Amino acid sequence: MTAHAIAIDTVYAALEDLRARRPLVHNITNFVAMGVSANILLALGASPAMVHALEEVEDFLAISDALCINIGTLSPPWVEAMHAAAVKANTLGKPWVLDPVGCGATPYRTKAAAALAALKPTIIRGNASEILSLAGETGGGKGVDSTARAGDAVSAATALAKRTGAVVAITGAVDYVCDGASLADIHGGHELMPLSTALGCSLSAVTAAFAAVRPPREAAIAALAVFAAGGSAAAENARGPGHLPADMCDALYRMDRATLARSVRLLDSTG
Amino acid sequence: MTAHAIAIDTVYAALEDLRARRPLVHNITNFVAMGVSANILLALGASPAMVHALEEVEDFLAISDALCINIGTLSPPWVEAMHAAAVKANTLGKPWVLDPVGCGATPYRTKAAAALAALKPTIIRGNASEILSLAGETGGGKGVDSTARAGDAVSAATALAKRTGAVVAITGAVDYVCDGASLADIHGGHELMPLSTALGCSLSAVTAAFAAVRPPREAAIAALAVFAAGGSAAAENARGPGHLPADMCDALYRMDRATLARSVRLLDSTG
Amino acid sequence: MTAHAIAIDTVYAALEDLRARRPLVHNITNFVAMGVSANILLALGASPAMVHALEEVEDFLAISDALCINIGTLSPPWVEAMHAAAVKANTLGKPWVLDPVGCGATPYRTKAAAALAALKPTIIRGNASEILSLAGETGGGKGVDSTARAGDAVSAATALAKRTGAVVAITGAVDYVCDGASLADIHGGHELMPLSTALGCSLSAVTAAFAAVRPPREAAIAALAVFAAGGSAAAENARGPGHLPADMCDALYRMDRATLARSVRLLDSTG
Repeated sequence: MTAHAIAIDTVYAALEDLRARRPLVHNITNFVAMGVSANILLALGASPAMVHALEEVEDFLAISDALCINIGTLSPPWVEAMHAAAVKANTLGKPWVLDPVGCGATPYRTKAAAALAALKPTIIRGNASEILSLAGETGGGKGVDSTARAGDAVSAATALAKRTGAVVAITGAVDYVCDGASLADIHGGHELMPLSTALGCSLSAVTAAFAAVRPPREAAIAALAVFAAGGSAAAENARGPGHLPADMCDALYRMDRATLARSVRLLDSTG
Repeated sequence: MTAHAIAIDTVYAALEDLRARRPLVHNITNFVAMGVSANILLALGASPAMVHALEEVEDFLAISDALCINIGTLSPPWVEAMHAAAVKANTLGKPWVLDPVGCGATPYRTKAAAALAALKPTIIRGNASEILSLAGETGGGKGVDSTARAGDAVSAATALAKRTGAVVAITGAVDYVCDGASLADIHGGHELMPLSTALGCSLSAVTAAFAAVRPPREAAIAALAVFAAGGSAAAENARGPGHLPADMCDALYRMDRATLARSVRLLDSTG
Repeated sequence: MTAHAIAIDTVYAALEDLRARRPLVHNITNFVAMGVSANILLALGASPAMVHALEEVEDFLAISDALCINIGTLSPPWVEAMHAAAVKANTLGKPWVLDPVGCGATPYRTKAAAALAALKPTIIRGNASEILSLAGETGGGKGVDSTARAGDAVSAATALAKRTGAVVAITGAVDYVCDGASLADIHGGHELMPLSTALGCSLSAVTAAFAAVRPPREAAIAALAVFAAGGSAAAENARGPGHLPADMCDALYRMDRATLARSVRLLDSTG
């Protein structure tokens, strides 16, 4: 296995394209993540909307460029709307991201995540415990926090990618993107990031935004790279996790090629 | 048409009155805007509450001074509560503000906004696309973001004001307040403001707070002026949109006559 | 009545224990407080989760260390889930905190709070108006804000503690903890704190986190003391209330014995 660097220029070109096209991202996400996700999408250059009523999700999807489904604070009417939106996204050929928050924590949650994963998401993004659980292994996890390291979930993610057809992104201290045939590692970010709620959820929304302008694997890599660079920049002089979401917005708003190049390292480590 | 300045003193007097009376503002608003709206109302000097269950909206309205209805993340039980609250507000003679978020984006949303507009809101506040759509014209819009300029919606807003009896406020780079017979322009604010989610929604809540202490047109002008001045002050040294909501709270908390006078320009441009 | 100081070392030991054990805190809380509560729990050293569907609250409680029930934005399906979770917590012997937000504001809210209080919460935390109302007295209150001082609710809180078996915490300019037999006063905090929404709700979540590692009275005193010290530190150089939640997170993340010792004063004033 020889790992070789992925060019930062491909990531930066994706970001410039996103900013130019300003994709409308339809989010069906949890109550905690809505505000943070919306602000991060706006700062990045996308146009966010949070729309979850069964009465309008299909119509809204028709005018959207991508969809993000996050099961963080799920309940039956939301799950029903998530299904309708996922099916509609497939019909319309629009990319959609599944964030299986807390998969493995309760049977209800695990079942909801599995049912959505069976609907052929374009990209699945989760922490190691969630990906392990969604792949059918014992994921551990402490509520919505992971107890496994991202690297431990790579083979499960590969199996999950093969079974569902989705590109699978596992995020942690190191992030991984696999599509069943290839593997990329994203090195960057900051240890304070898991102490700020909804950043992972926002990353899923960012992934959906990139999926509106790039093919799935390239979109996932670009999203993880830009987000990791944003996190590094935001946390640089932080006294704690409190201002991370706001500083993350400023960092994404100002993200340029140089910051990206010095903040993240991308490797194609396909075996 | 001769435009003449509206005195800043009338705006500042309204703010001082609001701070002295600390109106209780009942909000039925979207999940994204709740926290920001509550903080902005508190910083301004009002007392916010977020109450949406059909089982208590009417009782809560009885102890409130004004109501803000925002359809951002609507669903059937919420729409039902919005109707009950609007009807009760009219019965009790309490002012209420309608924020038709995303009107035009889906038939469900457009219909919900139209049904509420028919219930005689005191003030309607929206962006240009929303006001155009609510007035029955083609509004454009990109999800919940406007694609039209505020000035383009003035004649539609005037027609809407005449039809509903509401004062209509259109916000954008320049804001407009019209009541069918008069027109005021508010110049101020900052270009970063649309990149921070829920600021427009919070402005609707602020408008409701002013409506508790001033007649509709004066309330709308005061709200837009104070908010624009707060936005200018908050964005002054910003590195991006991330800290705007927090800095907006500080700016509103500290707002004085001098800041107001140097940050906004108010014109009565009634034809 | 002779008041004597409660040792800061017992509070700091509880905090160190919390950080070491990282309790999973299950929150069924209001839409406004979710994000702030989650961030404050993370900064403090706990692991938060927001889970409210009837379909999973009992399963989630089984893996949690403590529960916080907050009725801020209640509606029938949530009330049903709150009941199921409270009953399950009692069955499993897990501590739970009740935050009766806005108790007294509407009959629906007052009844919901009373029904939950009858289910034997471990700790009840509220402002003076809420505690007075829950104890069956006239609480006043302005929506969700208190119009009474904490000290005015001490005898009502003592009666409520005796009736329900809960430790009762009243927060305000001075905080009180009573269990029917003893009384402790916590002096600290900052006058800006009531101008930042959801800080009180977050304190209830923090109380639940401490209840996972200490007996009820000691947990409530530690929570109020650490939170007051955090608030003092966060507000120290504030220009307004806007950045308090973020600065509060940083202050809790960095909280040490010295900051605690200089920021709060704890008295056992049992008669």
